[in-house]
Amino acid sequence: MPEFRRDPVTGRWVIISSERAKRPQDFIRERVTQKGGFCPFCPGNESKTPPEVLAYRPGNGTPPDSPGWTVRVVPNKYPALRVEGNLDRQAEGIYDRMNGVGAHEVIIETPEHELTLATMPEKRIEDALYAFRDRIVDLKRDNRLKYVLVFKNHGEAAGATMEHTHSQLIALPIVPRQVVEELKGARDYHALKDRCIYCDIVHQEIKSQVRVVLENEHFLVVAPYAPRFPFETWVIPKRHDSAYENSPPANYKELASAMRSLASKMDLVLDGPAYNMVIHSAPVMDSPTEHYHWHVEFMPKLTKVAGFEWGTGFYINPTSPEESAKFLRQAKR
Amino acid sequence: MPEFRRDPVTGRWVIISSERAKRPQDFIRERVTQKGGFCPFCPGNESKTPPEVLAYRPGNGTPPDSPGWTVRVVPNKYPALRVEGNLDRQAEGIYDRMNGVGAHEVIIETPEHELTLATMPEKRIEDALYAFRDRIVDLKRDNRLKYVLVFKNHGEAAGATMEHTHSQLIALPIVPRQVVEELKGARDYHALKDRCIYCDIVHQEIKSQVRVVLENEHFLVVAPYAPRFPFETWVIPKRHDSAYENSPPANYKELASAMRSLASKMDLVLDGPAYNMVIHSAPVMDSPTEHYHWHVEFMPKLTKVAGFEWGTGFYINPTSPEESAKFLRQAKR
Repeated sequence: MPEFRRDPVTGRWVIISSERAKRPQDFIRERVTQKGGFCPFCPGNESKTPPEVLAYRPGNGTPPDSPGWTVRVVPNKYPALRVEGNLDRQAEGIYDRMNGVGAHEVIIETPEHELTLATMPEKRIEDALYAFRDRIVDLKRDNRLKYVLVFKNHGEAAGATMEHTHSQLIALPIVPRQVVEELKGARDYHALKDRCIYCDIVHQEIKSQVRVVLENEHFLVVAPYAPRFPFETWVIPKRHDSAYENSPPANYKELASAMRSLASKMDLVLDGPAYNMVIHSAPVMDSPTEHYHWHVEFMPKLTKVAGFEWGTGFYINPTSPEESAKFLRQAKR
Repeated sequence: MPEFRRDPVTGRWVIISSERAKRPQDFIRERVTQKGGFCPFCPGNESKTPPEVLAYRPGNGTPPDSPGWTVRVVPNKYPALRVEGNLDRQAEGIYDRMNGVGAHEVIIETPEHELTLATMPEKRIEDALYAFRDRIVDLKRDNRLKYVLVFKNHGEAAGATMEHTHSQLIALPIVPRQVVEELKGARDYHALKDRCIYCDIVHQEIKSQVRVVLENEHFLVVAPYAPRFPFETWVIPKRHDSAYENSPPANYKELASAMRSLASKMDLVLDGPAYNMVIHSAPVMDSPTEHYHWHVEFMPKLTKVAGFEWGTGFYINPTSPEESAKFLRQAKR
């Protein structure tokens, strides 16, 4: 059983993942592992993953766990967390632990092994966005789960261990600290101004234009004012909504278009960088609020997080957002 | 001039480092850069660094910026922050910025290019520990500076850009959020129990022994209960002191010995891993406190920080501290 453990000083939770248990030799071997060969995410290999929890099969449809799907969602074969059981919160002397209860799923966005967010048809991305929502809505019904995180690791440097493009979803029994901080910041700002901070960001950025990468009817793609990483870029809905799953699905087409353009611009400017994509959204149990505003953050992996960042929580970024936005704005295939 | 910028939602500061300004081609080129060749940190090349701010020259001594030193401290040639000027705090619409005032220095721990923390003589490490203290004590006199962070990036994967072993020091005009969190956690615990949380950790770990790597008269080397990373290991002084620079220098010999043994054990078990070392210490302007307790954290770079970690602030760690401590404890040359 995986285990949550709490750092007694900072309150930071970590997951000690027994399912993925690694001994020293595993880390050493990993450095020389070659990719390629068999892919469990490719059509025809459905039996090599746990049974699917969701799949879109166009037309008359094909049976579960067989080819014919366009998007397929399966539990992670080596989950960081387990759906079964209860939290069983306990003390260990001065320390705190609980069972690693939660869900960990993989969203396979396309049957085609070599496509990426930048090269797959827009309709595939749109379908994946629907799949994210469908899974969140389903997991929400489990009231042990307080937060659902959807993210994508693209490229080995960004932590991807499978080449076939996919996103992941982790449902957690606690609202993570990073989210708590964002919620608190947004709530404090709203208390002061009676406005949503993200709505204010959208207005100021559209007005000044210096950090705007692109814009469509419903979304703004912008380099944030204080980016942690070079070429960090956010996709913010213009319409206020606190949770991804409550935003109008009619807008997913435009979100897919914005995400695909951004990924394609990053490929052009940075020669196909590794990146992390994270959907920031309100906790699943919360009612809609006026202060929080969901959005998507893209972080290309161009620099190393080092001692300074670990020691301070600050980041040193060698590229200003005004400059990165200019490069991305001008990039055209 | 480098610039501090504040994320308007979370309050997280970043440094936009104009001195290290990077355009897209720089990131692409970096991937294929080869190491080796000329080293500005080697004796005889003193003129290739900014003039030294401190050096230990045994015996009768040699002139500044010439060979004959055992430890040499120089300003970083491409500093993330600048000593000159004032903060000039300003608003930019809804955003906040200030000038990148601070200090950024490099501590070259040995004249010998190929030595590491695991292979250099213990006396060299002890001297470096003295140099850390001397620099902190000097920078403390500048009352614009609120925090001094000492850290080491070892190996390319941990962010080192120079091969010649060195540590770095960054002095900041604000106490960083990571430190504020630790201070707050320690203060809250002390308010509840009237005891220092780190002293409690030392007692519980020595009693249980399951996470202890090694121990000498003044220091405990231990895998923390909730480590973010596989083989993360802390070196904690047994005697309570809130700040590194106020701890008895007579103990540096034992600290050097503990750090060298740990680095050497990591090399054996993990085949010479990249790692970050960070000294956690109280803000330089604070009087000694009963609740905070300085210590050193070592984080080998074996896994990739990915979307889950960025989105939550949680960490997934595939190796339990009980197991990593066992491997390190048993490792002997």
